[in-house]
Parts: sequence; C-alpha cells; structure tokens
Amino acid sequence: MTSDRQTGLHLEELGTTVIVRIDGGEHALLTPELAAEISSLVDKVDQDPDVHAVVFTGAHPDRFLSHADVTWLQAGGVGFPRINTGLARTVARMARGINRVPILRSLAGMTRLKTLLQLDSLHATLLKMNASGTIFIAALNGSALAIGAEFAWACDVRIMADGDYAIGLSEVLLALTPGGGGSQRLTRLIGPRQTLAAVLEGKAFTPAEALAVGAVDEVVPQNKVLERALERAEFLGLRAKKSLGAIKRSIYFGASLPILQGLQFEHAEFLVRDQDKEAQKRMLGYIDAIKASGDLPLLDPKIYARSVREGRIGNYSKV
Amino acid sequence: MTSDRQTGLHLEELGTTVIVRIDGGEHALLTPELAAEISSLVDKVDQDPDVHAVVFTGAHPDRFLSHADVTWLQAGGVGFPRINTGLARTVARMARGINRVPILRSLAGMTRLKTLLQLDSLHATLLKMNASGTIFIAALNGSALAIGAEFAWACDVRIMADGDYAIGLSEVLLALTPGGGGSQRLTRLIGPRQTLAAVLEGKAFTPAEALAVGAVDEVVPQNKVLERALERAEFLGLRAKKSLGAIKRSIYFGASLPILQGLQFEHAEFLVRDQDKEAQKRMLGYIDAIKASGDLPLLDPKIYARSVREGRIGNYSKV
Amino acid sequence: MTSDRQTGLHLEELGTTVIVRIDGGEHALLTPELAAEISSLVDKVDQDPDVHAVVFTGAHPDRFLSHADVTWLQAGGVGFPRINTGLARTVARMARGINRVPILRSLAGMTRLKTLLQLDSLHATLLKMNASGTIFIAALNGSALAIGAEFAWACDVRIMADGDYAIGLSEVLLALTPGGGGSQRLTRLIGPRQTLAAVLEGKAFTPAEALAVGAVDEVVPQNKVLERALERAEFLGLRAKKSLGAIKRSIYFGASLPILQGLQFEHAEFLVRDQDKEAQKRMLGYIDAIKASGDLPLLDPKIYARSVREGRIGNYSKV
Repeated sequence: MTSDRQTGLHLEELGTTVIVRIDGGEHALLTPELAAEISSLVDKVDQDPDVHAVVFTGAHPDRFLSHADVTWLQAGGVGFPRINTGLARTVARMARGINRVPILRSLAGMTRLKTLLQLDSLHATLLKMNASGTIFIAALNGSALAIGAEFAWACDVRIMADGDYAIGLSEVLLALTPGGGGSQRLTRLIGPRQTLAAVLEGKAFTPAEALAVGAVDEVVPQNKVLERALERAEFLGLRAKKSLGAIKRSIYFGASLPILQGLQFEHAEFLVRDQDKEAQKRMLGYIDAIKASGDLPLLDPKIYARSVREGRIGNYSKV
Repeated sequence: MTSDRQTGLHLEELGTTVIVRIDGGEHALLTPELAAEISSLVDKVDQDPDVHAVVFTGAHPDRFLSHADVTWLQAGGVGFPRINTGLARTVARMARGINRVPILRSLAGMTRLKTLLQLDSLHATLLKMNASGTIFIAALNGSALAIGAEFAWACDVRIMADGDYAIGLSEVLLALTPGGGGSQRLTRLIGPRQTLAAVLEGKAFTPAEALAVGAVDEVVPQNKVLERALERAEFLGLRAKKSLGAIKRSIYFGASLPILQGLQFEHAEFLVRDQDKEAQKRMLGYIDAIKASGDLPLLDPKIYARSVREGRIGNYSKV
Repeated sequence: MTSDRQTGLHLEELGTTVIVRIDGGEHALLTPELAAEISSLVDKVDQDPDVHAVVFTGAHPDRFLSHADVTWLQAGGVGFPRINTGLARTVARMARGINRVPILRSLAGMTRLKTLLQLDSLHATLLKMNASGTIFIAALNGSALAIGAEFAWACDVRIMADGDYAIGLSEVLLALTPGGGGSQRLTRLIGPRQTLAAVLEGKAFTPAEALAVGAVDEVVPQNKVLERALERAEFLGLRAKKSLGAIKRSIYFGASLPILQGLQFEHAEFLVRDQDKEAQKRMLGYIDAIKASGDLPLLDPKIYARSVREGRIGNYSKV
C-alpha cells in the first residue's frame, strides 16, 4: 500500500464509496492522532450526500488494527487520585459535556484529563457511525484485537479474511476491561452468553469462530476481502441515504430502549421519512403502478427481486 | 373463503379459540378501517375469559396481509410543516395522549393528524396483544410485507406456509423506514445483526430463511398452516389465562428494561399471581400430593409430561 | 454425599475454588433457610481475594435443586388484601428498601411481609453474584426446575449432566409465573422468542435441548460434571479478580441499559481498571516487551495462546 508507512488514513474514492486504508504504523496501532483523523472523516462522510458507504481496511499486510497504543492507555491511568466506580461514572458522563464546549475542551486537554477526553471522543465517533446514513464496512484484512475489534463492531458490516487471524477482546489478560464499547456492542451482536464467555477468557475468535457466533458477517480469502466489501458497499449504497440512517438509528438506538420507548423512537423516524420528498414521490409512483397493473408490485417476486437489486422500487414493468 | 370479498374480519369460534380471517380486499391490504376492526377484536378477546387464543389468517388465497394501503401512508405525510426527528419524537409521544381523550381524539381525527393517530392506535393494539393473557397466533397462509410482517411479529407464535412466499420489511425500497414496530420487534426476536442486514437491504425472508433466523416458528405445507396453528392455540390455551398474561408481560416488557427494573417487574407479576385463588388451590394440591406420594410430582418425568399436555399439574396418580 | 441429609451447604476448598454442595434435604428443595445460607456465602466469597471461583452442585444424587419449597411460596400469597399489578410493583420496589434497614427488616420479618422480603433477599443475592469478581459455576448434576433453574441462570457458567434430567420453568402449570428472575435472565441468555415458547408451555429443556438453545454451556456425562466445572473454575480463576468483576458488570448490567448509558457504564469500569496497580504493572511490562522484541506480544499467536492459558500476558519469550 504505502511504502513510507506514513501513519494516517489513505483515502480512495470509487463512485459513492470511499476506501479508507488505516495506517497505524509498523505495528498497526490505534493512536489518539489516528482516532482524531477517523473522527474528522466520519463527520465529513456523514454530511456528504454523495458518499454512501465507507470501507475501512488495514494498510498493514496482515492486520486490520492491532489494538490501541498501550502507552496512551497507560498514561491515562496515572496522576489521578484513585476513584471508585460511582465517581468514575460521573466522570465518564462529564467527559461528553466537556468535549462539547470548545473552551473547556482545550483547557482540559492540557491536563491529566486528556486521555479521558480522547477516549470519550472516540465513543462519540463510533456513535456517529451508528447514527449515520453512510454505511460503514470493516474489510478485516487481518487481526483486530481490543479497540481494533471494537472499531470493527461499530461498523455495519464485517468481512474477514480467512487465515491465522484473530478478532476479540484480550483486555482481561492485562488486568483491564474493555473500554471502547466492546462489552456493549458485542453483547448486542451475539448475545450476553457468548460475549461473557469470550471476554472473561480473553481469547479472541478465529475467523471461523467469529462467523459461527455472528461476530463477523462473512469470511473470504484474504485477497477477496476488499472486493467483497466493495460489492456490499455498492449494493447497500443504492438505497436512499436518509432511509439507511433512520433504519440504523431505529435498530442501534431504538431497539436498545425499553420497548415502549423504542416504538416511539421508531414512530418518530417514520414520521420524518413519511414527509420526505423522495419517499412521497416513490409512494405516489407505487400507487400509480397499482392502478396501472391492477396488482401490488412488491407482491410480484420478479419485480421485488429487481427492486432489491436496484435499491428502490420504481421500474414496474414485468421482467 | 368469501366470494364477495367483503373487507373486514370473519370470525369463527372453535372451543376457546377464535379463528379470524383477515380480508383486506383483492390486494389483501391493511386499511385504517381494518386496523380499527382488529383493535375492537383485541379489546374484546383480551377481556373475555372464555377466549384463550386467537388465530389470525389471511382470507386471500396466497397472502396473509400484503402491506399497508399506501394511499393511507402517503396522505399522512403531506400537509404538515416539515418536522425534524426531535419534534417528531414529541409528536409521536403526544399521539398516545390525544388518543386517550375521546374529545381530543375526535377533534384531531378531522384534521391532518388523522393518519398519525391511526398509526398510534395500531401501536396501542399491538401492545395490548403483547400484554394480554390471550395467545395470538399468526397462521401465515402466504406473504406478509411491511405492516403485514410487523403484525405477525406482534403475535406470540408464527406458523408459515412453505412456498414462494415472503415475510419482511421492504420500506427502504420506498425511501421509508419501518413504522409499525418492525425494527423493534424483529430486533428483539432475532437480534440486531440479522435485523439490520435484512432491513437495510429491504429484502424479505423466504419461509426457510425466516425459520432459520427465527422470524417464524414453524414452516408447514400451506394446507396445514391453519390446522397446525389451531393445534398450538388449543395446547397453549389449556394454561391459566392470567398466567399466560403475566409471562408475556414479563418477557415482552420486563425483559426489555434494564435488568434491575426487569427483575422488579417480574417480581410484581409474581406477587399478584401468588395471591391468585387458582394458583393457591394448585399449590395446596401440590403440597398434599407431596405428602401423599412422598416425592415431588414435577420431578417425576411421566407426571410432568402429562401436566404439560394438560396445561396444569393436578392429576398426580402415577401414569 | 451426606448420609444424615442435613439441610445446608457443605463447603470444600480446592486451591482458589470453593465447591459448594447444596443439600435441600431428601427432595432437594430451596428453603428460605438455604437461601439465607447462600446469601452469606456469596457475601463472603465476593469479598475474599483468595476465592476466585465457586462451583455449586447438588448433594442429591440426581437433582441440582428441584424447585422451591412450595409451602413457603404458598404462605406468601395469603393474608394480604388482594393487590393489582401496579401496587405490586410499588411493593416489590419497597422490599429492597426495607431489606436495607435492619430495624425495618426485623419488624417486617415478623409479619406477613416475611416471604416477600425473603424473595427480595434472594434477588439481591443473585444480583451480587452477577456483580462479583468471583466466578460462579453451576455443576448441574441433575434436574433444576423453577427457582432451581433460575439459580443456575444467575451463575456465570452451566455444566449439565447428560441423562433424563430437566432444566426449565414450570410455573405456568401451577397457574403462577416465574418470580426468581427466570423470565429476565433466560430471555437475556437465549432471546425472547425461545424463552416465551418455553415458559408459556411450562415444559423444561432436556440437557440436549438446553445446550442447543444456550440455556446451558456444556453437557457431559454425570460423573464428569464436577470435574469439568472445576476445570473451568480453575481456568477462569487465573484471571485478575477485579477485571472479571468489571467484565461481568459491564455485560450483565451495562449491556441491559440503553446503548448510550451502557457505553458510559463500560467507560466508568474501564477508568477504574486503568488506574489499577496490577493493570498499570502489566501495561508497563507490555510496553517494555514491545521495545525488547520489536513487535506486539498479543499479535504473536503462540504468545497469545500461552497468555490465555496463564490468564495473563507476561511471559513474552517466544515459545
């Protein structure tokens, strides 16, 4: 990929998809600088109506993202008075507030709070990925441990290379606990039973194990990972971006709420979509097509299949 | 079924089960009028101690319920000032309140709020089905898309016909997002990973796929769907109706709460059941049976199996 | 095990694991006295840094824990004015408060509230097991119904004997509903669809069925149950106890919250761990090992595998 191994993100546009090669240096580590670059990228693609999907892959030949720069995490744990879990909860909540006020953020950034705020920013980035109409795909060309796995699980689709690679949460082996959302997102992906077993052990999944439990969506030969990720990106990217965002929010956020609130969350997303110009146009077209053909286009398997291929219902002539 | 294709519900009583053939006209559509009829039916069977189960099936030869009358949804999206998601959330919450005050409801029903209120009423109906001691079974004689699928997922059991039928959420193809609870109930049935993949694609499940992921409970030949649904209705209907309600609420509502609140929810349901006359009678009978036989009836596999068949423990003689 | 069938807990220490044989008398019943003993034991092992795991098994030759002493439950349901679910919810919440104030507890314990408070204490014990850094393993040497199953599902690992044994919730057959957390913990273990089907039927799982749905983790011949449970206890017990606690809380409690709050919950647990002396030592050692070897120890499959076996990363020499 890059011969000079410059740390950072290398972007390549391909139609409505952006390929992002993450270069974490020779060790493929997530540094705070790299996290900040990912954050800016996510802000940009989320807003850009012409970007429908992002494919993340590792610039390293055999690693997607190894884990965090441990020096960063280690430094974040010293210099504070020891705190208990209750106080830590207050601090974790405060971080989001401080990060939202630029003056506070720059003042606090000069202090021991820096690592805390950087970790909170990373959380905000991953949440923005979950809320966005842009589809994020992890093209796992190799291993992803700890924050590397947590980042992949914050994507919408995971394609992993077959081979001697690992994806999982190793934190317990360092006497730590996951901090980048892994205990939350993996539990919601594969359920608490299998998450608990894996995280208590600290043993990562092989590609086959990850596929079997649902921690990745597909396993393909390493040289097909990017190709397959791009296929999925293009396919999903054919759909209305605003609908994709509403669906992602309804499932990631709404369905994590108590059911009554979840239903209201979904209802609100529907109300906004129902008023949308594009949705109105398609609904009126659908009504016309019923009148013209005398039947419901979606109930015709061939028309339905074509609509799925095209990402929209609209070409109603019999196929 | 009906030759005049009169839109509406056609009821047939069979012991403690009511068969409801849903006739949505030649296209098997859910109209607001049909939704209102379903709402009245649910109110009635929920209260009637003699109705233990309801089997819903489609009057159409190959469709359970195609999807909503799109004219209805389309009309609901026009005439408002454009709203954002935050405001939509407030509106969605308000709808339940307005729907509960008859005078407000009839005033608002004459305005542009009509579709919104109708959709909210449908939500209330599906929630009442989830809370009820009556068992609701979807006998899917054919396809069910969008609101058709959402209605099936609000039932307690789903038996689907084998064949070229589909069940799923196609909203994204119309630039919409699910609005009848599908993103919430499917996620809770089959998990967020597989729900997200299906709803982003807009591709419905075949009967075999639906069975594999858990979106339906059984797939049988089309001419056995009603028979099998009635068997399940009769079997589950042998149990104490109030217990079935407590169990459904504990799982649908309690288990969607944070665990501490979920445990308190279940505890409260238990306290009410523990005081129930019928439960007291059965517990006293169980205690007597232990004294008489010298062992625990439920630990005898034959007595246990018979109790499951009969829906109650009570006949303790060795079998 | 014991020939005099003395009801109670029989403890045996084995390294950092405590084996607890639960003796509920000839019927293997959970009595309030036994529940109180389990509560004291959990308090003790939770605090003791030298106890890393507890293996619970049944003293009865074919039963883990049959179910509750029905006389206890039955007595708890009489003598109150009949209450509705709303009031019951208030009462269930109050119980925790009363139980926390010794004077109120002893006053209330002399009244009709006694069963209610005992059930609430049991809930508190099971929650303490979920929150603890001690690993709890159910070595299911035989059947476990109702509260017996609920107790097993509050453990972290379940190893079940193959044979004509049953694990499940039979409450509906007595016109009751689960009250010891079963509707909550089983739903979170195996999902609402399969929980609903099982609890509405009142039919328990065979060992093979329990394994297939995930209601137990392993099924082995009965004479291997304890041995296998001890292996798992020793293996997991090699990990830092405080990390195990943080992981359990993040998954059991954090992941039951709406996702935003769940992420903050996890973040707080991470902050506390990150400052921990042992974690700091291991991170500094890891950083040194990177410098010494020129690569990341965790990305070397052999070093990683050894670390999982040893429960900690620390011996970095190539193997």
